[in-house]
This record gives sequence, structure tokens and C-alpha cells, in this order.
Amino acid sequence: MAELKKWYFEDFEVGQAIEVGTRTVTEEEIIDFASKFDPQPFHVDKDAAEKSIYGGIIASGWHTCSMMMRMLVDHFLRQSSSMGSPGVDEIRWLKPVRAGDTLSVSTTILETRPSTSKPDRGVVMTQWQARNQHGELVATVKGMGMYGRRPQ
Amino acid sequence: MAELKKWYFEDFEVGQAIEVGTRTVTEEEIIDFASKFDPQPFHVDKDAAEKSIYGGIIASGWHTCSMMMRMLVDHFLRQSSSMGSPGVDEIRWLKPVRAGDTLSVSTTILETRPSTSKPDRGVVMTQWQARNQHGELVATVKGMGMYGRRPQ
Repeated sequence: MAELKKWYFEDFEVGQAIEVGTRTVTEEEIIDFASKFDPQPFHVDKDAAEKSIYGGIIASGWHTCSMMMRMLVDHFLRQSSSMGSPGVDEIRWLKPVRAGDTLSVSTTILETRPSTSKPDRGVVMTQWQARNQHGELVATVKGMGMYGRRPQ
Repeated sequence: MAELKKWYFEDFEVGQAIEVGTRTVTEEEIIDFASKFDPQPFHVDKDAAEKSIYGGIIASGWHTCSMMMRMLVDHFLRQSSSMGSPGVDEIRWLKPVRAGDTLSVSTTILETRPSTSKPDRGVVMTQWQARNQHGELVATVKGMGMYGRRPQ
């Protein structure tokens, strides 16, 4: 028999807000990610970044999303019946994320919908939020996840 | 005087489709990215992935988007007046991306809009597509970019 998970489709309640942790990002991490995936000057080149509209190096938005994902995975996805995701909507990068910033991430359950075609799973719609140490919202994502249903 | 760029806001035409290159992804890259940012079993654990609905390791969707981003940066963003992005919409992960897959990425210009509040820039809306070596669409993203206007 398969090991029981902590979170199944049935465990998500609309309105529920889950704090998934905090993470401080370093300059080395920002430059390392951007060098691989988003080497625009304001992400990788200190001099160019200082002259840009950002006034210094900022994290790639894809890096910010990836850090949010890691916190979601550590906090509950890894202990869940997650079957992946068909996509996400409305990613907004609202404020720059800079070296030394500490992100606090939460996800709020917007909607849960059992699959009509596949009775073993359901979709959970979520709103992710990342705030910095000043309480400013820096990034939001509308997530969609597929979760297996609790075994009967 | 600042160095002239190859791509300014004025250089994007609605309907224009830009092929931005191809990239083959390795298992090492898939596991490396997912270990850092999305360590769900079907991204990092071969045995668990084989037993999952995916039948083997697949790339994190965030990794796929990040690889698309890198191709966009290499092909034109780095030679452009890009000022970053307020966000993206409608990311869809349509088919699994597996080790050995070769992604071909394109971006099509959907809309260009001069900023009404900031006369030095404009927003360009784009549709990104990634296809695998079988011609199957594996991921799509509606992008938004801010670009500086061509100096007069």
C-alpha cells in the first residue's frame, strides 16, 4: 500500500492562507541564477545595473518565482499528492528583489475543483504572494495545481 | 553618448514572429534546477518519477520558462533597450519536457503600446512558444516587456 500523504486534494479549503516560509537572497545567488537564465545587464553586471532604472542589481523575476516555488515545495508540496501543474497565471513582479532581501511567502486557496474527466484528482487554484522585509508585496502568482484525491 | 542598441520599442511590429533558437536539455540540468527550486519527486527522483503519472523525470515548468528566457535574452533582449518586465500571463505547461528534448523557441509580437505616463518607454506584449523535436507545443507564455524608445 502506498504511503499516506499529509496533503490531498480534500485538504485544501477555499480561503485558507498558508505561510510557507522566509528566504534571504544573496547577491551570489542572484547573479548565479541570472548568469544561467536571464543575463540582462541589470541582473548580472553591477556597473550597468547602477546606471539602469533600478540603480543596482535586481533578481530575475524567474528567480523570484523559482524561490517561491521552492518554499511551497518544502512547506507542503513534497508532503502532498501533487501531480504537477498545467500552468500559472498573472505573474506580477511588483517591486525589485535585491541582495539581502528576505522574502516571506504565502499561498491562499482560491478555488478547488474535482476533475470531471479523471476521478482520481482535482485542481486547486491558489494566490501566491511574496513580501520583502519591509512588508512590501514584491511578487504575486496565480497558481494551479493538480492533486490526487485522498484514498478511500 | 550612450551606445546605440539593436532593438528599441519602435523596432517591434505587431505580427512579427522571431525565432530565438534551440536548446537541448540534459538530465543533469533538469535535476540540478529542480534540486534547487522544485524538488518534487517527478523532477529529481528517477524511481519515484517512473512510478508517477509522467513515467520518468520531467523538467520543472519554471526551468522550461527559464530556458525560454535565456534564449530570448541571447537572441535579442541583450541587444535591446529592455527595461525589465512587469510580469507575464497565461503560462501553460502543455507537454512534459524530458532529458534529451530539444526546444525550439519563438516569440510573436501581439501588441505594442507607448507608455502614457513615461514618454521614454513602451510596453511590448508577446506570445512565447516552445516546441520539442517532434513539433509538439510544450509551453507557452504571454510576455510583457518594457523597452526604451529610440533616441531622437
